[in-house]
Amino acid sequence: MPAEVKHMKWWGWGDEGASFDISDRPGVWPYLATQLGITETEMTPPVTFESIQLPAAKRHEQFLTDARRALKPDQFRDDKMERLVHAAGKSFRDLWRLRRGLVSHAPDLVVYPESEADVVAIVTAAHSHEVVLIPFGGGSNIAGCLESKDAYGRMVVSLDMGRMNRVLEVDAHSLVARLQPGALGDDMEAQLQSHGVTLGHFPDSFLHSTLGGWIATRSAGMQSDKYGKIEDMVVSLRMVTPSGTIVTRTVPKCSNGIDVNHLCIGSEGILGVITEAAMRVHRLPERKAYYGYLFPDFESGVAAVYECVRRDLMPVITRLNDPFKTQLSFAFKQRTTPFKQRIANAMKWYLRHVKRIDFAKCCMMITAFEGEPAAFRQRRAEVNDIYRNHGAASLGDSPGRSFEKSKYDFPHLRDFVMDRGIIADVSETATVWSNLLNLHAKTSDAIAQAIRDTGSPPWVGCHVSHNYHAGASLYFTFGAAPHRGRELEQYLYVKKAAEDAFLKHGGTLSHHHAVGTEHLPWIEEDLSPAGLHAVRALKTGLDPKNIMNPGKILPGKNPIAEWGLSAKAIHVFRKP
Amino acid sequence: MPAEVKHMKWWGWGDEGASFDISDRPGVWPYLATQLGITETEMTPPVTFESIQLPAAKRHEQFLTDARRALKPDQFRDDKMERLVHAAGKSFRDLWRLRRGLVSHAPDLVVYPESEADVVAIVTAAHSHEVVLIPFGGGSNIAGCLESKDAYGRMVVSLDMGRMNRVLEVDAHSLVARLQPGALGDDMEAQLQSHGVTLGHFPDSFLHSTLGGWIATRSAGMQSDKYGKIEDMVVSLRMVTPSGTIVTRTVPKCSNGIDVNHLCIGSEGILGVITEAAMRVHRLPERKAYYGYLFPDFESGVAAVYECVRRDLMPVITRLNDPFKTQLSFAFKQRTTPFKQRIANAMKWYLRHVKRIDFAKCCMMITAFEGEPAAFRQRRAEVNDIYRNHGAASLGDSPGRSFEKSKYDFPHLRDFVMDRGIIADVSETATVWSNLLNLHAKTSDAIAQAIRDTGSPPWVGCHVSHNYHAGASLYFTFGAAPHRGRELEQYLYVKKAAEDAFLKHGGTLSHHHAVGTEHLPWIEEDLSPAGLHAVRALKTGLDPKNIMNPGKILPGKNPIAEWGLSAKAIHVFRKP
Repeated sequence: MPAEVKHMKWWGWGDEGASFDISDRPGVWPYLATQLGITETEMTPPVTFESIQLPAAKRHEQFLTDARRALKPDQFRDDKMERLVHAAGKSFRDLWRLRRGLVSHAPDLVVYPESEADVVAIVTAAHSHEVVLIPFGGGSNIAGCLESKDAYGRMVVSLDMGRMNRVLEVDAHSLVARLQPGALGDDMEAQLQSHGVTLGHFPDSFLHSTLGGWIATRSAGMQSDKYGKIEDMVVSLRMVTPSGTIVTRTVPKCSNGIDVNHLCIGSEGILGVITEAAMRVHRLPERKAYYGYLFPDFESGVAAVYECVRRDLMPVITRLNDPFKTQLSFAFKQRTTPFKQRIANAMKWYLRHVKRIDFAKCCMMITAFEGEPAAFRQRRAEVNDIYRNHGAASLGDSPGRSFEKSKYDFPHLRDFVMDRGIIADVSETATVWSNLLNLHAKTSDAIAQAIRDTGSPPWVGCHVSHNYHAGASLYFTFGAAPHRGRELEQYLYVKKAAEDAFLKHGGTLSHHHAVGTEHLPWIEEDLSPAGLHAVRALKTGLDPKNIMNPGKILPGKNPIAEWGLSAKAIHVFRKP
Repeated sequence: MPAEVKHMKWWGWGDEGASFDISDRPGVWPYLATQLGITETEMTPPVTFESIQLPAAKRHEQFLTDARRALKPDQFRDDKMERLVHAAGKSFRDLWRLRRGLVSHAPDLVVYPESEADVVAIVTAAHSHEVVLIPFGGGSNIAGCLESKDAYGRMVVSLDMGRMNRVLEVDAHSLVARLQPGALGDDMEAQLQSHGVTLGHFPDSFLHSTLGGWIATRSAGMQSDKYGKIEDMVVSLRMVTPSGTIVTRTVPKCSNGIDVNHLCIGSEGILGVITEAAMRVHRLPERKAYYGYLFPDFESGVAAVYECVRRDLMPVITRLNDPFKTQLSFAFKQRTTPFKQRIANAMKWYLRHVKRIDFAKCCMMITAFEGEPAAFRQRRAEVNDIYRNHGAASLGDSPGRSFEKSKYDFPHLRDFVMDRGIIADVSETATVWSNLLNLHAKTSDAIAQAIRDTGSPPWVGCHVSHNYHAGASLYFTFGAAPHRGRELEQYLYVKKAAEDAFLKHGGTLSHHHAVGTEHLPWIEEDLSPAGLHAVRALKTGLDPKNIMNPGKILPGKNPIAEWGLSAKAIHVFRKP
């Protein structure tokens, strides 16, 4: 029997028992509370597992008969915990409901395929009997891609890909690896590294997300500047659809009409289930290290990144925080020894009085380099020169080491603030270089104003972390004190302000988080009506009964209302 | 009134009057004639323009009324020359028929839109009245994409994009340019270069092809190793379809579901008409130069290219000829002075006796570098080291200059050999590095055997010219003495052998020439039945009446027979 597939805790991020440890970071809560005007902390922990009532599980007997004929008994699970951990992803809305025990929908059954043949059997049975399938990787999606709803009340099955978790083949000469879709990032990377190669894909969700999910959502990892976004890494793939299994050829590039790989990439489960992909891999770098820098302001930091892009001198990670995100990172500082504190104070004095850094405007940049030692040193020296010319002060490797240590911890922070009733989320986009500062300013203002509308002082920060020839991404984080009784609508109101700003000012609805249900109100404007029509045509053609992850990507007639934001809430927040 | 749109000669490649000048290349014809066992040259010139009978033009009066209401009179053309130059592209089959005056199909009308609004008006009218539209760029396609047929006998309109030929906007900071689709390569590049930027896309067809065509066919230029394939350069686009105008957003990357850019790229006109694209552009390089090298054999040349790819030390052009293609390039040598000939003889002596080059096995490599002078010198030195370690001898810049001078002339050679009755064409593919030598050997053998089957000694050569992380392209050229009375079937028989070998041995049906009609028999095997079904779904959804370039990409029920190769011909050639 295969090992049990590991899942995150049902109500939050990460493994059961793991959480954001504030004990040695005394500055975090005072900083956030001050920013959001919170004077008394009211704890809002999740309800107990026992108190949760799941809706009764539907059973489609003919489907179950077909499915049981093809798979082994231990591949089916329908106990309460299984249904609950597969009921949703980890979006703010998912967690807000789960923490309150508001579980109106959960899959009726969880199936663990162990091969493509298993997937074909389940998809065929589901298509025959009109049972809904929701492909499930690590469960980390924060755009509502995993909402286990069906508008027609059909039986819903979560297809957990966690047992299809092997590296099937590494072509070390071509540097192409055939991978199953279901291993969690660290498991897959460990298998690849035993062959001396890496995929180079390290999203913040790395420990809790999978290849299949990355491809289905057009994910980006923190080293995308070197290795590309996930869509750049796919050489070929296999996807089981209700109309047959799409199989593309493992060739580097071709001209075979419309690129069928790209019909599958980003399809968020609405067309089928990715069962395998051949991916570009890379030899392991000999050396890798992270460093911190402080830029005098956001503009100079952006200009430095831009120059690195233009001169083709990119580090492997370039993560530039804006002033507010920089303040937050300062507040994250760990408790330290008096001796270290004295050094830090001296450094601060130096930055303020010698480098003329204004701590209210300055911007933290985390930068990583990797490669064989000589190339590593050369690139680092070149980038240091560029940064220095843009006024940066080097902070050495201590902020870098701290980033490296905690680089997958950030999502835990949301549980921490949600424990304290805070409304907090992220919204990210991308735009061309000539519009980056404008979009940053306009969106920051729009989010801040929306939060003020809801009665809270705003906190909005942003970082730039994926850089391309034509432009870069902007990743916004925001927080608000709750508007009691209207928390979810408050969240949607603020989220709407962010997305409206993206589309009004030259961005896109998401750079790497997917459409899911969260971004349904903007997809038509993003793709244009005819572009959306093309996506619908694919859906209708491949999944005519709409059994594959229905309700994602393709919006209904009144997206904002279906999304959950009422005209009344808008009226309440945006006082006439 | 806009300037007249320039077209290639109706029966061959290039401008009227331009042709392949053999007068100072005395070795070409003796080499080819010897290889193909041709002892007596029989000239087979094209028929005269006057002798050609076009089928009578169909007129759909309601369509014409709608179209004339929207466009100006000078945007419509239906004279014989206009119909003839728009009747086909420049595939071997297109030209073989045209040269013999076998013009069974020609568009009934040519329309020259001058704006997206014009295109919308024509597409709308065509959709209403079921008139077929064939988007036409430079007319250079060699995969049958421009065959002006309609299986249902409807009126056929060629939509010549040549008047939509402007660079609309250059964002010099983001290095993104908004371009209309219809300028020929040199015109568009001249406009871009006046802004100090280049697209970096230089296919062999550069002088006679357009951006719209490049995007619609997933073209690759000779500097793709630096600038990417055309699909890598598209930031956003606009495409007018019978179901509305698709408009994507000008952002560097996104996660907005299925990538709608990629539904349009490679669509070969079967979904709509590309009316605009925002493309990545690049600052002009300060310096650029071409050099020649001679490798002891194909294996060592491939190993050298591979090492450049792996060490991220690519030149901007790397074109490695196999031994047969190298022989052909030797035969191309220009007549020279006695003094230069003496130097050449000395060089030959040195190569043979000092560098131990075997002229029957050696492989010519053309390599170009560009960039600011220091980077140029450094990269050239690094590549020279790699090449030397793989046994290469540097030939200096003389073969490079010769390549540079004639780099767009190669397609003229086909007219030259067709004037002499020879069956000749190209077939290209791509595969992963670990399979490159195998696919090269298997395909070379398969093509040679097929030519032998048809009664001719074979000539087959190949070059490697587009290199990627995972693999590279293989570009085969072949020639045969004609099998009298069965020339076209002979051509298809050999072409089939090439394509069969590609798909059997791990290649793809085309790396950058498109599907069109030429590759219809292999598209289902290439994409898988479900993959092809997905493409059909898009077609049905966006163009329900099948008015957009029908018969391309999507095969009928019996593709080989529809393609024109009879079972009888196969039987004749492949004697039992």
